[in-house]
Amino acid sequence: MTRFALLVEYDGAGFVGWQRQADGLSVQAVLETAAAHLAGNPVAVVVAGRTDAGVHALGQVAHIDLARDIAPDKLAQALNFHMKPHRVCVLRAAVVAGDWNARFSAVQRVYRYVILNRRARPALAAGRAWHVPHALDIAAMAEGARHLLGRHDFSSFRAASCQANSPWRTLDRLDVDREDDCVVVRTAARSFLHHQVRNMVGSLKLVGEGYWQPEHMQTALAAAHRSAAGPTAPPEGLFLVEVNYKQPVFGLL
Amino acid sequence: MTRFALLVEYDGAGFVGWQRQADGLSVQAVLETAAAHLAGNPVAVVVAGRTDAGVHALGQVAHIDLARDIAPDKLAQALNFHMKPHRVCVLRAAVVAGDWNARFSAVQRVYRYVILNRRARPALAAGRAWHVPHALDIAAMAEGARHLLGRHDFSSFRAASCQANSPWRTLDRLDVDREDDCVVVRTAARSFLHHQVRNMVGSLKLVGEGYWQPEHMQTALAAAHRSAAGPTAPPEGLFLVEVNYKQPVFGLL
Repeated sequence: MTRFALLVEYDGAGFVGWQRQADGLSVQAVLETAAAHLAGNPVAVVVAGRTDAGVHALGQVAHIDLARDIAPDKLAQALNFHMKPHRVCVLRAAVVAGDWNARFSAVQRVYRYVILNRRARPALAAGRAWHVPHALDIAAMAEGARHLLGRHDFSSFRAASCQANSPWRTLDRLDVDREDDCVVVRTAARSFLHHQVRNMVGSLKLVGEGYWQPEHMQTALAAAHRSAAGPTAPPEGLFLVEVNYKQPVFGLL
Repeated sequence: MTRFALLVEYDGAGFVGWQRQADGLSVQAVLETAAAHLAGNPVAVVVAGRTDAGVHALGQVAHIDLARDIAPDKLAQALNFHMKPHRVCVLRAAVVAGDWNARFSAVQRVYRYVILNRRARPALAAGRAWHVPHALDIAAMAEGARHLLGRHDFSSFRAASCQANSPWRTLDRLDVDREDDCVVVRTAARSFLHHQVRNMVGSLKLVGEGYWQPEHMQTALAAAHRSAAGPTAPPEGLFLVEVNYKQPVFGLL
């Protein structure tokens, strides 16, 4: 068997999320079906970050094992052919060691959250941003964000459905910037709790609107209870940007 | 009557183009229907640049005349309300002089054309870029583009259906740049012939692929015949970015 790492892009809008579900089409099902066509047998896809319904990926990483000997470029092309017309594609494929794991070998996940911060509802950005019509105070949001950096118990920002063993996570980055009529939140950590990014963004929005002082992010965090933080931001603004490994997997992109 | 200028964004994918047509929904029809709801009488919308089916706008400009006295912000909100759920929105509205005309007062139109230049077909950029899988030579394209700058007879780049009186146009700008996995062409002129931008891009692609030397753009131009230039690039990569006037209409954006 040869293990292949796959760099995957998808538009979250048409899917029930990464993971297979009985009630609709998942990214996993599209990819596994295409891989099974190619392999002639069922193929299980292991993924770095399971994304929720509506969440997009620019650089999701997954791996599959194939008995067939196939050049990585050909594999990517063949998978893309079989995944038509779904809005999923394999950007790169690479042969990796048999003990390399898309999920467990990952050392960092990077996400971007886009808030369309203008009066008018989105036309071109529909389904790709959270529309917040009232002006947000970016400086206050950036100040609030700094309270979450480092190693903490993130229970306040954790979904009830979260299956992680521990609520402790180390946040490497949480930046807030204005880009044209958008407010863009960029965040990175070895791993995130379920809904953690969306719950952090939902709380930062309260700071940006002036409902919370920036220091209140510290209070919310310290409470270590979901009710202490803000609401969950909607999925359509969230993009999984990249997953990093000790050794680059796909070469220079 | 009060004349209002409108700054309009739309996703071209769901429309037969700007102009009203019998066979489908146009941006003009959506906007005129919303304005008529508001005014209580039919309203004609005059536009700066009629875009084809599939072409997007980030900053289209139009004007309407209303008997009703209404604050520009309220007008924008009301139009956006009535245009739901279509992917069109009014970003700004402003009161202008009665002799100001969205089309005839415009002194410059700025377009962007996005080519997704990578092996894998688009997932997130589907309908928002022209997919060209083989690597394009950006330096050659930029060199070819320079031959079109200035005042010329652009007959080689003009659609048969073009209704302009003269094929002469003055091209202010035609830049070619790489941005991540995209090649972005930016162009500006007082006005363009029908399909001119898409025909220029279709020709530049031939240069980027090496089928044409950069100097061949000069030859194609000099022939002053449509058959001398390249094919028309597809509409989905084209964005009307902005329309400029002697005096800024919407204030600082």
